[in-house]
Amino acid sequence: MTDVEHQKWWGWGVEGIAFHHEDKPAFAGFVLDKVGIDLTQPGGEPPTFDEIDVPASRLGDDLGAQLRAAVGDHQVSTDDMLRVVHTYGKGMRDLVRVRAGDLPRVPDAVVYPANEDEVRAVVDAVVAADAVLIPFGGGSNISGSLTPQPHEERTVISLDLGRMNRVLEIDESSGLARIQAGGLGPDIEEQLTTRGWTMGHQPDSFKHSTLGGWIATRSSGMQSDKYGDIADITRGMRVVLPGKVVELRPLPSTSTGPSVREMIIGSEGRLGVVTEAWVNVHRVPENRDVIAYLFPNWAAGLAAMAEISTSDAAPTITRVSDANETTFSLATRKASKGISGKVGEGLFEVLRRRGWDLEKVCLSYIGYEGGTAKIRAEKSVVGKIIGKHGGIRLGRGPGSLYDQKKFDTPYIRDFLLDRGAIGDVSETAAPWSKLGQVYTTTVRAARAKFAELGVPGFIMCHLSHSYHSGACLYFTFAFPPNADDDFLGQYDAVKTVIQQSFIDAGGTLSHHHGVGTDHAPWLEQDISEAGTDLMVGLLRAADPGRNLNPGTLIPDHREW
Amino acid sequence: MTDVEHQKWWGWGVEGIAFHHEDKPAFAGFVLDKVGIDLTQPGGEPPTFDEIDVPASRLGDDLGAQLRAAVGDHQVSTDDMLRVVHTYGKGMRDLVRVRAGDLPRVPDAVVYPANEDEVRAVVDAVVAADAVLIPFGGGSNISGSLTPQPHEERTVISLDLGRMNRVLEIDESSGLARIQAGGLGPDIEEQLTTRGWTMGHQPDSFKHSTLGGWIATRSSGMQSDKYGDIADITRGMRVVLPGKVVELRPLPSTSTGPSVREMIIGSEGRLGVVTEAWVNVHRVPENRDVIAYLFPNWAAGLAAMAEISTSDAAPTITRVSDANETTFSLATRKASKGISGKVGEGLFEVLRRRGWDLEKVCLSYIGYEGGTAKIRAEKSVVGKIIGKHGGIRLGRGPGSLYDQKKFDTPYIRDFLLDRGAIGDVSETAAPWSKLGQVYTTTVRAARAKFAELGVPGFIMCHLSHSYHSGACLYFTFAFPPNADDDFLGQYDAVKTVIQQSFIDAGGTLSHHHGVGTDHAPWLEQDISEAGTDLMVGLLRAADPGRNLNPGTLIPDHREW
Repeated sequence: MTDVEHQKWWGWGVEGIAFHHEDKPAFAGFVLDKVGIDLTQPGGEPPTFDEIDVPASRLGDDLGAQLRAAVGDHQVSTDDMLRVVHTYGKGMRDLVRVRAGDLPRVPDAVVYPANEDEVRAVVDAVVAADAVLIPFGGGSNISGSLTPQPHEERTVISLDLGRMNRVLEIDESSGLARIQAGGLGPDIEEQLTTRGWTMGHQPDSFKHSTLGGWIATRSSGMQSDKYGDIADITRGMRVVLPGKVVELRPLPSTSTGPSVREMIIGSEGRLGVVTEAWVNVHRVPENRDVIAYLFPNWAAGLAAMAEISTSDAAPTITRVSDANETTFSLATRKASKGISGKVGEGLFEVLRRRGWDLEKVCLSYIGYEGGTAKIRAEKSVVGKIIGKHGGIRLGRGPGSLYDQKKFDTPYIRDFLLDRGAIGDVSETAAPWSKLGQVYTTTVRAARAKFAELGVPGFIMCHLSHSYHSGACLYFTFAFPPNADDDFLGQYDAVKTVIQQSFIDAGGTLSHHHGVGTDHAPWLEQDISEAGTDLMVGLLRAADPGRNLNPGTLIPDHREW
Repeated sequence: MTDVEHQKWWGWGVEGIAFHHEDKPAFAGFVLDKVGIDLTQPGGEPPTFDEIDVPASRLGDDLGAQLRAAVGDHQVSTDDMLRVVHTYGKGMRDLVRVRAGDLPRVPDAVVYPANEDEVRAVVDAVVAADAVLIPFGGGSNISGSLTPQPHEERTVISLDLGRMNRVLEIDESSGLARIQAGGLGPDIEEQLTTRGWTMGHQPDSFKHSTLGGWIATRSSGMQSDKYGDIADITRGMRVVLPGKVVELRPLPSTSTGPSVREMIIGSEGRLGVVTEAWVNVHRVPENRDVIAYLFPNWAAGLAAMAEISTSDAAPTITRVSDANETTFSLATRKASKGISGKVGEGLFEVLRRRGWDLEKVCLSYIGYEGGTAKIRAEKSVVGKIIGKHGGIRLGRGPGSLYDQKKFDTPYIRDFLLDRGAIGDVSETAAPWSKLGQVYTTTVRAARAKFAELGVPGFIMCHLSHSYHSGACLYFTFAFPPNADDDFLGQYDAVKTVIQQSFIDAGGTLSHHHGVGTDHAPWLEQDISEAGTDLMVGLLRAADPGRNLNPGTLIPDHREW
């Protein structure tokens, strides 16, 4: 059988790793206060797999034989567990449904190709059989891009790229690497860093997402201020379509009409299967510092980030949390580490004497990379801007907490779900001039919906990426739904008002999570109906049989 | 009649401005030496317009009435001169043909809308009449994107955006401006700089090209190392298609599937008419310096530019000329200015004593913008890299020549043409690792073709833009064709081997001039046949009647 490792079928990450609060003394009180959950009570357990009723595979003999001929007998699986793992991503809707055994349509087989020739054979066999192909990377998608349509009558094949995880080539003169699409973040970075290189791409999902997945969903990472979003990083690609391969050579820039590269990026499997890409790689930086700062309030933090974005400094990370997220961060700290040390020394007392409203304090992280002189100059520029907006420097110790905790957040969702609560995220981007409005209306809309549902709810936010003209705002929300009402219906109600607030205030439906099925209802509001026409026209021409991951990207009412 | 100003019908720029060599003492000798043209002999005169036989307009009464209803009687012209101006761009093929009165198909009318509503009315009328629409900005295109297909039987309408030239709005908090697509470079910059802002976009064509044209052809500017290519600068757009408008709101980044923004950019009129765009604008920089340097040879110059691209410095301009272009630059200097002063002081004698081969010296310009500390730090970083590669600093005086001459080059083409010689440009981009090969094979191929034709030919090159993973190489070539043979055939022969060398060595068909009809034969080699399929599918879906600038972008044999 395949040796590709998968995430838990019922949650984020791998078996044996989970969020714990016992070493975080302030967390239980915080959770009780904000969402009314008593952590002294034992949490529920995730279901066991034998409680789940998995629909039988409908893989026919002909297609099965062709797939086995394409990739080898041992790389085609109809195993129930593997099929369930490949049914969903890790969105809140996904987790709730898989834990409940809600499996209207499960892939009929999972196929693990070893190389592009095998991918071609699989794609051609699937399309010839008028079946459906869903490419699968790390399975970390949280926008509903991986799930077969519930009423799909055709055979559904999940194409898992997990065996194609090698860095094939590094062009050291150009800072380019050719990497197979199935490589997970750690696979890729390990192969690169042993040779002194890094992609620098670090989405929250880093440990469980792949290069192909990043490309297919227009991913962005924590250090994208320096390294660029995946659309900047990806310079060339190979993409398998029925009967052919799109070959885009690595180019720093080009003027060849409508960008085919930018059509593939974000295509979520609907324009074929990315098998490998040429990506920008960089020498592991000489120095790397993350410094923590505090602002007296959110508006000051936003204004400082905006000013930094047009300054002579070019930090690798620009992040500021709102007051709620700052409180959350303090509540998840371990005893006597980082900020808590300073807090213990009476920092907050000092701030209070300075006139800060401690309910409004906002924590910020700024990352720096490069030579000593560059970092020193940038810290000086940034320090002045932060001071101008009333902020203060906490230092490198608290900054180091950033790197320690940066990939942990998704585990908290499972922790909450075990206790009957919903926790999820929604993120957007907007021009600087609109971020305040995006923030205010989104928080207000979520709170109004919590009130309407009659639940204690919590919403927090951070600015996660800065650009010349604007930034990404990343919201996290949590609440314990009413036990008597539809669990997912309550989630949908909150998620919906958040997404609508983004659009209404001038933001986009997603900065880096993609469209999938979850955000597709807002596509026409975001890129206009006529813009959606262009996208549908492109997909329809490339995949007239609608065999390639149908259902994602385009709103249902378009029937494409 | 319209008050939109146009370039000369027979050449670059406006009447009364032309290249002169009388104030450049070294130029005549240089030209005689390199391409055998004796400038002591009088040049030919361009033809007078009454020598030209202009086909009659075929505009029918119905469509004519609809167009006049759409934009007003005075904004629809069937004037011969205006129709000829709108027949061609300013490529070498264009200039040769228009001067020869070779006008197989001339637009039947030129229409000047005042706003988007009028554009919509025109587009709808043209498509309803199954006519052809060709959007026209400044007419500076040199890839053949503006010319009606020679055998086009349908009515052809040139849509001139020249009246739509206003900066509509500046979002000062976000560094974004909303600008009408018909604004020429100087129009736009004047409106921006009076308010303290700049786009920073400076293509060679700056004075005669428009925002809409930059977007439609994926333009890049001299300062794009800092300000970005037009694809980076353009954050939102409005685009008129038959019966609808694509509206893309200004976003710093977004994850909404295949990028519709990046489908419009580069679409050369085939996906509709861009009426306005939100673009990044920047505060006019505190300081701006262009410093000239010399390298002992081309390889050293390239290596230094590559190293600068991964250094802690981020210059606004990175340019290095090969030895031929350096000689050309010295030959176009005015008496006792800039480099010539230093040369007069014996600089070259000093270099010779240092062991430099003066035949191989390469001139470089590096631009810096920002605060004093940033510029000082960057000059220090760059200075060390240049020193490491054997280069020396010439200084700011010679650097200032860069700004003085930067928009003059296109006039030289007309000067040569008046004397029966061909001069033209071809540019590409490739990874750093392939630039040496692109350069060598291109120069070799051009020289072989000159030899085969039996003409004295000259080819020179500069690196014009640097990226993380590679750079743009910009070639200029000139030769006096054999009088007995087909003039354009000889041009095509040289141009063809240059373009083919680009592709064969790993470069792209164009870094920033677009595809048009001239580069379309290489599209499939560049983005692959399957990639071209995606592009054709997109165009076909958006414009099933093939009414929108047919003939450009896609190779002829595709018949789309």
